[in-house]
Amino acid sequence: MDFSSFLTSLGTSFVIFIVLMLLFTWLSRKPGNSVVYYPNRILKGLDPWEGGTRTRNPFAWIREALSSSEQDVVNMSGVDTAVYFVFLSTVLGILVLSGLILLPVLLPIAATDVKLQTTKSNQTFSELEKLSMANIKDKSPRLWAFLIATYWVSFVTYFLLWKAYVHVSGLRANALMSPKLKPEQFAVLVRDIPPVPVGQTRKEQVDSYFQSIYPETFYRSMVVTNNKKVNKIYEELEGYKKKLAHAEAVYDESKRTGKPEGLRPTTRTGLLGLVGRKVDSIEYFNEKIKELLPKLEAEQKISLRENQQASALVFFTNRVTAASAAQSLHALMVNTWTVMDAPEPRQIIWPNLKIKFFERQIRQYVVYFIVALTIMFYMIPIAFISALTTLDNLKKLLPFIKPIVNIDAVKTVLEAYLPQIALIVFLALLPKLLLVLSKAEGIPSESHAVRATSGKYFYFTVLNVFIGVTLGGTLFSTFKSIEDDPNSIVKLLATSLPGNATFFLTFVALKFFVGYGLELSRVVPLIIFHLKRKYLCKTEAELKEAWSPGDLGYATRIPGDMLIITIVLCYSVIAPLIIPFGVVYFGLGWLVLRNQALKVYVPSFESYGRMWPHIHTRIIASLLLYQVTMFGYFGVKRFSFCTLFLIPLPILSLLFTYVCRKKFYRSFSNTPLEVASFELKEIPNMEHVFRSFIPPSLSSEKADDEQFEDALSQVSRTGSFA
Amino acid sequence: MDFSSFLTSLGTSFVIFIVLMLLFTWLSRKPGNSVVYYPNRILKGLDPWEGGTRTRNPFAWIREALSSSEQDVVNMSGVDTAVYFVFLSTVLGILVLSGLILLPVLLPIAATDVKLQTTKSNQTFSELEKLSMANIKDKSPRLWAFLIATYWVSFVTYFLLWKAYVHVSGLRANALMSPKLKPEQFAVLVRDIPPVPVGQTRKEQVDSYFQSIYPETFYRSMVVTNNKKVNKIYEELEGYKKKLAHAEAVYDESKRTGKPEGLRPTTRTGLLGLVGRKVDSIEYFNEKIKELLPKLEAEQKISLRENQQASALVFFTNRVTAASAAQSLHALMVNTWTVMDAPEPRQIIWPNLKIKFFERQIRQYVVYFIVALTIMFYMIPIAFISALTTLDNLKKLLPFIKPIVNIDAVKTVLEAYLPQIALIVFLALLPKLLLVLSKAEGIPSESHAVRATSGKYFYFTVLNVFIGVTLGGTLFSTFKSIEDDPNSIVKLLATSLPGNATFFLTFVALKFFVGYGLELSRVVPLIIFHLKRKYLCKTEAELKEAWSPGDLGYATRIPGDMLIITIVLCYSVIAPLIIPFGVVYFGLGWLVLRNQALKVYVPSFESYGRMWPHIHTRIIASLLLYQVTMFGYFGVKRFSFCTLFLIPLPILSLLFTYVCRKKFYRSFSNTPLEVASFELKEIPNMEHVFRSFIPPSLSSEKADDEQFEDALSQVSRTGSFA
Repeated sequence: MDFSSFLTSLGTSFVIFIVLMLLFTWLSRKPGNSVVYYPNRILKGLDPWEGGTRTRNPFAWIREALSSSEQDVVNMSGVDTAVYFVFLSTVLGILVLSGLILLPVLLPIAATDVKLQTTKSNQTFSELEKLSMANIKDKSPRLWAFLIATYWVSFVTYFLLWKAYVHVSGLRANALMSPKLKPEQFAVLVRDIPPVPVGQTRKEQVDSYFQSIYPETFYRSMVVTNNKKVNKIYEELEGYKKKLAHAEAVYDESKRTGKPEGLRPTTRTGLLGLVGRKVDSIEYFNEKIKELLPKLEAEQKISLRENQQASALVFFTNRVTAASAAQSLHALMVNTWTVMDAPEPRQIIWPNLKIKFFERQIRQYVVYFIVALTIMFYMIPIAFISALTTLDNLKKLLPFIKPIVNIDAVKTVLEAYLPQIALIVFLALLPKLLLVLSKAEGIPSESHAVRATSGKYFYFTVLNVFIGVTLGGTLFSTFKSIEDDPNSIVKLLATSLPGNATFFLTFVALKFFVGYGLELSRVVPLIIFHLKRKYLCKTEAELKEAWSPGDLGYATRIPGDMLIITIVLCYSVIAPLIIPFGVVYFGLGWLVLRNQALKVYVPSFESYGRMWPHIHTRIIASLLLYQVTMFGYFGVKRFSFCTLFLIPLPILSLLFTYVCRKKFYRSFSNTPLEVASFELKEIPNMEHVFRSFIPPSLSSEKADDEQFEDALSQVSRTGSFA
Repeated sequence: MDFSSFLTSLGTSFVIFIVLMLLFTWLSRKPGNSVVYYPNRILKGLDPWEGGTRTRNPFAWIREALSSSEQDVVNMSGVDTAVYFVFLSTVLGILVLSGLILLPVLLPIAATDVKLQTTKSNQTFSELEKLSMANIKDKSPRLWAFLIATYWVSFVTYFLLWKAYVHVSGLRANALMSPKLKPEQFAVLVRDIPPVPVGQTRKEQVDSYFQSIYPETFYRSMVVTNNKKVNKIYEELEGYKKKLAHAEAVYDESKRTGKPEGLRPTTRTGLLGLVGRKVDSIEYFNEKIKELLPKLEAEQKISLRENQQASALVFFTNRVTAASAAQSLHALMVNTWTVMDAPEPRQIIWPNLKIKFFERQIRQYVVYFIVALTIMFYMIPIAFISALTTLDNLKKLLPFIKPIVNIDAVKTVLEAYLPQIALIVFLALLPKLLLVLSKAEGIPSESHAVRATSGKYFYFTVLNVFIGVTLGGTLFSTFKSIEDDPNSIVKLLATSLPGNATFFLTFVALKFFVGYGLELSRVVPLIIFHLKRKYLCKTEAELKEAWSPGDLGYATRIPGDMLIITIVLCYSVIAPLIIPFGVVYFGLGWLVLRNQALKVYVPSFESYGRMWPHIHTRIIASLLLYQVTMFGYFGVKRFSFCTLFLIPLPILSLLFTYVCRKKFYRSFSNTPLEVASFELKEIPNMEHVFRSFIPPSLSSEKADDEQFEDALSQVSRTGSFA
């Protein structure tokens, strides 16, 4: 890519961004769109436009983002989001501090050297490459400046990461010691409960066990049940309720628009309402609901009595006991009665709770193994699928597409793109696949599954996108030489780096201008919302579902950002010109997402910043990759003796990780007691705490308290109270 | 070593054992020796001879040992000793079960093959070697039997180790849930307390911190002080008290034996009582004591007020809270307010308590590094010292030895043995050195330090004695070939093994006959005791000190046994004849030590079986070494394809370790709450619990309660009570 085409691409991206921003300013002012641009505020019961004024200024959202405080973010979107902003601003800080030194020092040094001009002229070099280390002659003493720059970037990273870890620890502690009642702070999750002794029920077993250990603070327990059947009936019921509301809305509308007596909507009783007998919708759905209600209640009772599993939630009357119980070994056999912090009710993955200790271990390793295979050999199944999905095969499998495919133009295009389509589909499905795999590990909470997915996806992106693109086709052809000398992969990576600098510059620019432009303008959700509103939604509930904004999606967002950090760090010294691009990426990202976090996205769980240690480790992993690459690159420059000065850097990074892990990590995986011992504003309503953990499919329609008393708590109430 | 000299050596050892056993039967019957042969019973206030009859039967002690139950051992010598017997009987079981299959099957198979007869006849082979795998021809199908035997030994080991781990867990749990009051179960050790806030004392800081977390169960705290000065004065004082008692006893005796008015003993005031002014001993010591008493009291107050350190013992009113607190994270910063189980008062290593979190980490790694160097290169300092301690150098340094050394005979002997003497001195001092190093890690309790020492010593013995002797001189000459191919060390070890079988047979036999003979007869302690009684001891206290038996000495005893296991396991299949020797070693050891544990040794600490996981791991390490060696040896036998069948074994061992660690380990490093929640016989006297932790140098002579109230507890008493 030469310099002019680079500038063209940059310019185009910028224009797209400006257009999208103006679109945003225009669209977000329309009241009909407020549910797309301000759903978080609306759901919190706030006025979409703060202060009530709608501005025409296309930069107003920037002012608002800048003037918002961290506390605003915590209030509007939770600690996890605030931690994500700490991440963004930390990386921004690293890049700004690095750039302030590297740009004014290294660019002139590189530009005034002459290596590229003196080498054989059958190659052409862009202006950009002349500003990079590629232009420095081998063994030149100028390399010392680059060596010191390598250290500078590393130390800036250590310093800011340390500060960020301290800050996030404080954020987490503040949230955990908040005087507001959080049900999960009073509960622990108990798994691997041994078989029920003869003559006792599961409930009695759990109650008597915890009663004897915590005679004063034990409140009661809730045995986890297998709710598969109940859930099915419940979902069916909820589906009919929605359909009934829809049918009623249609009927009402027909009264208003058509004949005054209205047109009663009809439906078919068969598959998807498409086949079968035609019936009156309202009557039919009402009938179905009446039929299912007693069935649900009966099934609820069966579930609660007979589908009890070897897992329970145990409730305590104070936070310190719960926090301490979650960290303590309870049983002599470590793989029984394992206790951990209870996740928030909304993010419990119920079916995973029953999985046994060693099964969890085995599942984990099996999943790691599968993921490792996926990361390393993901091309193989894709190639296999593309081979299967040749046009001829497709025609055999799906005969009805024959007429279309036989058109010459379509045929050519399809034949050319089928493998790429397979790849695109695979890449789009990958995060979902990784999430499914992570859940299959037996992880009990959504937030943990998202963290696990994010980690897996990070390694996939860095290995395949960054290293894959850099080494490109050369890797396979030189596979033999790598096999002989595994160190040569570092060297190979190092030699391939400068040539790809321009590609990555463009990549980063595209990501921030187009990516963040789309993010801010929310064009796609807007269109989908309006289509749904027009053609599908009849009731309020359906409308609400149509604009429901979702959460920030950490599982893919963080690995995406991490890829940019890896690229920018690895090139920071080799081609310092990449730093401003990184700064814009994270600066613009901070602004756009601040806007989105305050106004759009609604977090689907709160893990009180437990994402941070994972982010921290991955930034260090990027830094390590950078340091090793630099070591290789200095070797390529035949700066041999002085290259040795780089050896302390990876060691320092590992040491830094070790110290951080020892000093901070445990307070992220457990709740420190000094934090849990802060007093609550009011005496907790334990009944409310307990009830918030009852899954919706089990909670009674009739708010009949006694049902749960009998089914969930089979010991007498006095027995389980202190 | 040929067969006849092997039998001679075996016979001699056996005769020595019989003589020592008869000596024991004769000596232990004399009432004057009862303090040497029955100190544990005497200290427990029991009659030395159970039932009051003294038998002449030389096998009576065996009957007594066999009829004693595990509970007897726990009662007389604690859980640690009982665990040691579990270890002995487990290994015994492994060897017996292996031997039952291996001996009748493998010996005939080996004896009927002909490899050794057919090889070139310039080598001679003993009868023993004909019974080993060395006699099997290469690639012979008979090797299958040996391969299956290798599996049999491994599975027997897994099975019995698993059973033992379950059993020891139960032993530990029983001891921990005992209704008897154990002060350490009510306390936790807090280290890394942050600097004292302005306006608070250390005591207030600790009290308010734990008061707020445990408002109902916190009792009070004891800030650890730097007692260096106090200890010095206290020891001086105790020394003078002993000397005074001694002098008074001498004076009394002189009254009885000599003149009726007696001869007042005198002493000199200078160094060691050898130089200086001559004074009346009784007066002089009395004076010194009077002088030191107020000094001690003053220093005690200073210590308690001014030498407070960033560490404390915190007491709770129930066991569950203490056990749970010891496992919970208290502070947001993980390296502050670190909490762990309090060790028994008698085994706390006070000076280590103040060492900070990261300093402990650094110390640990530094110590590991030093130990690794010591293990690998211990010959270097010894060679260096031997080079320095040539006769000429010694003559220069210690001129007074010249006349002796110049005698020709002495000179020759000394010149020949000086290097060996240096080695022996080093080996004798090594456990002490390792103990000092382990304590330097910052370990807070004696039992932990002993475990750490035992581990280090194990690796030293196995690496240097077993592998060292096996490879012998060949290692250094073939060092080049190892450097080229690290795998060849396994092969080298394998080829060297059969030749050394006879050496190790003799070694094991010597260890059990002579070693256990000396152990049982206690000849050395007996002689020392009688010498001391005759010439040194005048007072009861001095006498008691003279026969004080000490403990079992796990730090060296367990590595010693482990060396035998390693040898026997590694040879079990190659030369199955070693198994009976192993059986006798552990059988005889069990009998002799059962006798010693019940009657002689007094444990100096109780760690409730925390030694077991370490023993377990090391047995597995021996097993791994055995499996790898067998893999190498089958390779040497060119049993190439079938050798691959051995690869699953080391993997199985690692898996077994992993599962055991996950299932059992944590209940050894922490107290499970279900165990701690058992009820005590009586309501604990918390004042007594608290006082038992006051170091002797700080406890007041005058039993003046108020002193400690003021000094140790500077907050008002009401403040620190719930």
